[in-house]
Amino acid sequence: MSLSSLPIRIVLVATSHPGNIGAVARAMKNMGLTQLHLVAPQQFPHPEATARAAGADDLLGHAVVHQTLREAVSNCGLVIATSARQRHIPFVPYEPREGASIAVNKAHEGNVVAWVFGAERTGLTNDELAQCGMLVTIPTSEEYSSLNLAMAVQIIVYELSLAARKTTELPVSEVQLATQLEMNQFYEHLQEVLSGTGFRDHTADGHLMARVRRLFNRAQVDQNEVRILRGILSAVEDKRGVSGGGEA
Amino acid sequence: MSLSSLPIRIVLVATSHPGNIGAVARAMKNMGLTQLHLVAPQQFPHPEATARAAGADDLLGHAVVHQTLREAVSNCGLVIATSARQRHIPFVPYEPREGASIAVNKAHEGNVVAWVFGAERTGLTNDELAQCGMLVTIPTSEEYSSLNLAMAVQIIVYELSLAARKTTELPVSEVQLATQLEMNQFYEHLQEVLSGTGFRDHTADGHLMARVRRLFNRAQVDQNEVRILRGILSAVEDKRGVSGGGEA
Repeated sequence: MSLSSLPIRIVLVATSHPGNIGAVARAMKNMGLTQLHLVAPQQFPHPEATARAAGADDLLGHAVVHQTLREAVSNCGLVIATSARQRHIPFVPYEPREGASIAVNKAHEGNVVAWVFGAERTGLTNDELAQCGMLVTIPTSEEYSSLNLAMAVQIIVYELSLAARKTTELPVSEVQLATQLEMNQFYEHLQEVLSGTGFRDHTADGHLMARVRRLFNRAQVDQNEVRILRGILSAVEDKRGVSGGGEA
Repeated sequence: MSLSSLPIRIVLVATSHPGNIGAVARAMKNMGLTQLHLVAPQQFPHPEATARAAGADDLLGHAVVHQTLREAVSNCGLVIATSARQRHIPFVPYEPREGASIAVNKAHEGNVVAWVFGAERTGLTNDELAQCGMLVTIPTSEEYSSLNLAMAVQIIVYELSLAARKTTELPVSEVQLATQLEMNQFYEHLQEVLSGTGFRDHTADGHLMARVRRLFNRAQVDQNEVRILRGILSAVEDKRGVSGGGEA
């Protein structure tokens, strides 16, 4: 299977150096990936991006620029975060090889997959991580772990290309994953229902909805399942409507 | 096994751009390799090399400069060439992964191993290839195969570090997973709440709870999360109790 035929996009968030964007484009094209999405890049387009892209400047020309990560991944079924080793992240990280294999399989089943990289110095924020369903950490030396952004992308797209070559014909799931848009609608619906009940947030960090999102993101909810979840919420709402208001 | 304890050197032949030498040093140090050998570099030392090395400039300071490849590999037991796909090479190329595994094994047995990269535009000459015992080709897109030198080194040292680690130590999560007993209590609780709402099972196979179980099983819910889920269900119940019963 060719990587170029799969709906996998690289998403760069808040990139500082335009040269890195160019180097990423080159790394992608070397491995047969073409879809580059940029979230609020500091400088783009930029001559340095074009120079570093070398023969991959066509990817820059087709790059899609977004204001928010949420927008960049709204039609994606699987969103993968790349992050350095951290102590306080509520994910068990995957290795690049495992992550790439999962990404290729999901893309092969027709799901749009986003592989997300944060800003050079700071990486992905907690809010950005909360929008991802999987975390991949590139193993590095403990003494010196600050991998250049384009180098990190190079390793990931290399693994993606290997995974795509390996994937022969796996059994394909008939049901597509829920898109991030559908999941966000579900979270909003859940929030409405919870507000109605006066439910209090007793989590240690005070971020109940973030915890709930993380749980469902991890589960990789499919189209049927998100319908079931919405149905449950609607049933709870209707019941409240009838017993609280209808009989008054 | 740590890569830094193994006698593996990276050898760059006739490198044109000093920036690439710096980027190679950084890529090496990120993966725990320290021994950089340069054969007739066009410009070295050079401020651009130092700048691109970022925190890996110590590798540049210790880099060994040779006049010929022959000199650079004279004490090596295994010499591996990296090359793009070529028609007229008398080698069957290995994949990076296989090559890295062989390199690590040989180094572990006490052999000095050299991994050789040619000049940016021309690669290794036939004479240089003739001094190598193995050839590794990094698979790339057929349409666009010109991998940046430092990117090629990054992929190889990444594979070397994986080969050296093989026995990985995964990060351990601090929070235990919910037990099956706790999950069953949650499912029963959910079922009670749903019965109370009169929610109908509209799934194709009529097994709504089985679908819901599958979804949560996949998520591998932890102890904190199952408490949050139970809290949500209790809140829905309480609200119903007040509006449906308490005011009657």
